[in-house]
Formats: sequence, structure tokens, C-alpha cells
Amino acid sequence: MEQKTQTKQKMVTNDLSDIARKLLDTDYSVILTHRYPDGDTLGSAFALCRALRQLGKRSRVIINGKLDKKFSYFLEDYEEDDFEYRTVIAVDIASPELLGDLAEEFADIVDISVDHHALNTCFAALSYVNANAAANAENILKLIKLLGVKIDKHMAKAIYTGICTDTGCFKFSNVTSDTMRAAAELMDLGCDSFEINRVMFDTKSMARIRLEKAVLESLTLHADGRIAVVNTTHKMEMETGVGDTDMDGIASIPRQIEGVVIGITIKERENDCHRISIRSLGSYDASHIGAQFGGGGHKAAAGCTICGKLEDVKAKIVAAAEAELERIDRS
Amino acid sequence: MEQKTQTKQKMVTNDLSDIARKLLDTDYSVILTHRYPDGDTLGSAFALCRALRQLGKRSRVIINGKLDKKFSYFLEDYEEDDFEYRTVIAVDIASPELLGDLAEEFADIVDISVDHHALNTCFAALSYVNANAAANAENILKLIKLLGVKIDKHMAKAIYTGICTDTGCFKFSNVTSDTMRAAAELMDLGCDSFEINRVMFDTKSMARIRLEKAVLESLTLHADGRIAVVNTTHKMEMETGVGDTDMDGIASIPRQIEGVVIGITIKERENDCHRISIRSLGSYDASHIGAQFGGGGHKAAAGCTICGKLEDVKAKIVAAAEAELERIDRS
Repeated sequence: MEQKTQTKQKMVTNDLSDIARKLLDTDYSVILTHRYPDGDTLGSAFALCRALRQLGKRSRVIINGKLDKKFSYFLEDYEEDDFEYRTVIAVDIASPELLGDLAEEFADIVDISVDHHALNTCFAALSYVNANAAANAENILKLIKLLGVKIDKHMAKAIYTGICTDTGCFKFSNVTSDTMRAAAELMDLGCDSFEINRVMFDTKSMARIRLEKAVLESLTLHADGRIAVVNTTHKMEMETGVGDTDMDGIASIPRQIEGVVIGITIKERENDCHRISIRSLGSYDASHIGAQFGGGGHKAAAGCTICGKLEDVKAKIVAAAEAELERIDRS
Repeated sequence: MEQKTQTKQKMVTNDLSDIARKLLDTDYSVILTHRYPDGDTLGSAFALCRALRQLGKRSRVIINGKLDKKFSYFLEDYEEDDFEYRTVIAVDIASPELLGDLAEEFADIVDISVDHHALNTCFAALSYVNANAAANAENILKLIKLLGVKIDKHMAKAIYTGICTDTGCFKFSNVTSDTMRAAAELMDLGCDSFEINRVMFDTKSMARIRLEKAVLESLTLHADGRIAVVNTTHKMEMETGVGDTDMDGIASIPRQIEGVVIGITIKERENDCHRISIRSLGSYDASHIGAQFGGGGHKAAAGCTICGKLEDVKAKIVAAAEAELERIDRS
């Protein structure tokens, strides 16, 4: 929409009540999800869209890329609606880059952003960023209540999906007692947590099963079993027939091994380059290892890219991990 | 204790307040756990023991068998205490058989039983059985509050362990909104849920990793991919070096495969016999399959034992599973 090219005032994070008031004042909204849409961005978007529709407003969700079939139930009680939008809402999107192909149209015209990433760049006119929320869907739950909308079963299911997928089913360190209480509330509102969790966490494709087997075959231990390394290759991906989402969580496999404090996953990319995922426990700093190869991340999870032959790449990253063990053990 | 051989009056389940009153009246208790002690029986026992000690009473936990090392933190803030017991408490124990080696001494003299198994035989003088609790530790949380004891960090950790282990980290169908609220409360009381969940759900021995690989190699699909079968053998157990607890959860692997509605795990036992675990989805009834071979269980999870050569056993159980598919699909 042409009239939406005016420069927006960038602000520090607003109150959720400001967001609610703004939403009540506006109509004809599109709700943007981030690229490679996951359960949290989708759950946030579909729940909010449904709430706005309950208020008699027109709203639609823009799924940013391919919808993984495990999320197809989001579409079951959703009707497409075509209209000229006047309001642009971003959910679970930390920065315009995460809009991917949607960036060109929307990056500069986002009115409202609701997010839980501490590094949110506040690219929207109004931004609510609450990094204490394990999932952005927790923020959306609060927002819908502020809108005065009765949360129905479908909203509850969408919000629960966001929460359970962003917390590894309440397992990760981001989970707070508020997260648990939000889930309780959603279950009371008719969300079948068991069925959602089964689809999200207890269903694997045969391709994934084959990939896991191949990944385990590649496993090597180093530094007296304190470092574990696995790798995937184009050949393995082809032979097992995995798709993009089948690769989710592979990086967590090596660090799960008892005694391992640094787990490394080497994934073959294009042109003899490899994407490295590093996961660490305790005082060992994955981002310190990744930074040596121009990468970065958090203390417990980081990544980098190293080019060269697999055996050389592996030798380099193992040496860096061994150095990290020494650095911390010495201190 | 000899004076404890009088016949106890068997009663239907009592109120939790009756149990609390009785506990306040008694002293010198032993708290029994069930054989192959899991997180729920141990968490229930250690939390209750600590609460009774806070009341100035003497109490001790009897660990019924080998303590899995992942539960060793239960002992960190626990002091052994030796005394002649006057009160016998059973937690998470549905029937005297589950006392295993402790049955001879205790089966007939249990004063108080707190449990969440619907089939509890009410073998104790006073029984509180609440089958709506996903974990018995939820009952214990309520009981400790009734005792008027302030729940400290260690009790919170023990109770949380019971809840998360009996619910597959809040994933199973037994989870209610009360379960989630109980977990929230325990986190507020200082329980580090992340660390417990990491140890319980994200740590695997190398032996387990090797076993999973071998199990996946044994996988076969039947009935157009709707039935999946895996098996373990003594040879696999020996070669991979797995212990008892490394076998936990193997039975859930085949049914996790996309499209599979009946998952079967065949485990080699002694004398050419095999223990069969059956897991099913939707309308398909695992217990109906198991019953044909003298076994039983629930609709979604059942078991039986079939003797004979592996290939014959496998043919029999697959035929029975195929018949179950037909039985339901026809109806």
C-alpha cells in the first residue's frame, strides 16, 4: 500500500496495554510470521488473528514460507480473507532480516511488533518486547486478554503450540513458572496438550529415523569422552531422503551423551564448506569456540562456518573445543 | 517389628486430610518405594520424609533396589537414620507385589498408602488413591501442605522429579492443568526444572546410543507402514553394554514413526521367550492384541510374552496387529 511509506518513529519497547489500545483502534491487519515459520511465530499469528476477528475486525496471517505439515491444523479453523491492509503486525520477529522474502514489502512499514527476543531491533512503530517470555505466544496470551476477547479452544491450541515448541515441551532453561501457568490455563480452555505434543515431539519421519542412524554412525568421541562430534553430508541427506524440518534437533544429539560437555555437529553445505553447531554445558562457552571461526551465538549454543575437507574441518573444530576445555579447566 | 502383625482393616480410599491427621499422630516411620524405583516413587518418598523430619519426627526412606545414578541427588541432602519403625508408609505402590523383596517384611503391615494408580488394591490400613494425579508426587505436594510444612527447595526438587518423570516432561495424556500448576509452584519454590529435565531427558549413555542404533537397524514396517516392529536381543544388550535403565523408553520408538499406528517392540528374554510391548494410536487397542497372548494393559500401551523363535514370534504378533487394524477399520 503506497500510503504506508511514511517514516515510522522508532521507539523503545512499549507497554502491552499500548499495543492492545492500538489494535482496538485499527483494522484490516496482516500478521507477519518470520521465515522458516515455527510453532511460536505461527501460533502467535493465528491466535491473534482469530482474536481480532472475534472483535469484528478483518485480519489475515501471512505464512512466511512453506508450512510444515505438522502445523497444518492451524489452517483447519482459519478462513482466508483478501483485503487491502492498513495495519502491519509482526509476531516473534526480532529484526527485519527475519522477514526474508517479505522484507521488501514490509520491512519499513511494520506498525506493531510483539516479540520475546531480547535483541529485537524495535523496527516497528510500536514494539512490545518481553524477553522473559519463553515463547512469544505467552505475550500473545496476555495481549488477547487485554483485548477483552474470550479465548476459545482454537486460540488456546495455537498459543499452546507456540509455548510447547519454543520450550522443547517445557524442558529448556527459558521455562518459568509463568510458562507453566499459561499452559495450565490453555488446557483449561480446551487445548488437548497430549495430541499437540505427540505430533510435535513424538512423531518422526522414516527419513529422520534413517538420518539419526547415519548420524550416530558418524559419532566420534574426543578428550576422554568430553567432546562428541557427529556430521551430516549431502550424501546422507540424499540417501535418507530427509527434508529441512527432519534436520531439526540433530545438533542436540552429541551433547546428550553422558559425560559430554561440548557437542559438535558438522553439516555439509555448498562449495566444500561446513556449518558447525556447537552445544556446551556448564562453564564451557560454545560462543567462544564459534567466534574463533567468525561465528557466534550464546554460551550454551553457538555456530560457525568452516570451509575445507571434512577431516580438516573436524580437526580444526575439535582442536578449538579442546582448547576451550583447557581454558576453563585451568581457570 | 513383631508387634506389627495384627490384621489391618482394609478400607476404601480415604481423604487426604485423614492421611495428614494420621501422619501428625504417628512417628518413627519408614517410607517404602516400589521395586525398580523410579522418579515418582523416590521423589514422593524423599519429599515426604523431609517434611516429616521438619515436623520433628523421625523417618527414613527405603530405596527398593538399586538407585539409578541419575537420581543420586536425592541422597545429597538426606541423612540416614536408624531406628525401630512404628509406622509403615507406601508411596506410589499399587499392590504388595510391587514391594518385591520388601513384601515379606512389609506387605501386611502398611499403615498408610498414598498412590495415584486406579488399580491400587487398598492393601494399607489407610489408603489415599487419587488417579487423577499424573504423578503420585502431586498427591504428596498436597499432603505436605496439609501437614502445614513449608516446602523447601529440596522437597520441591524431589516432587518436581516425580512429576516430570511420570509425565515424560509434561508430554503424556495423564497431564492435567493441575499438573502444570503444581510444577509452576515447585519452580517458584526454587526447583531448577532445567537441570532436572536435562539429567532425566537429555542425557544418554553411550551404551544407550549404541542400542538405539542397533534397534533402528532391526526396524521393519508392515501393513503399508502402519505397523512398525523393532527388537532387542541378548547379543545386542551384551555388545552395546546397556544396563536396565538404558532400556527405558525403547518401546516408544516404533510408534513414533510417522504413519505408524501400532508399534511393537520384541525383547528377548530367557528360554527362547520374548517380552512384547505394544503401543497404539487412535482407536487401535493395544490391550486387545496383548490379550490374545495372555497379556494385558491399557488401550494405548500393553504387553505380553510369546515363546518361540524370534521370526515365529514376530510373525504371530504382526498377524495379530494386522487383525486389529482390520477389526477397527471395518467397524
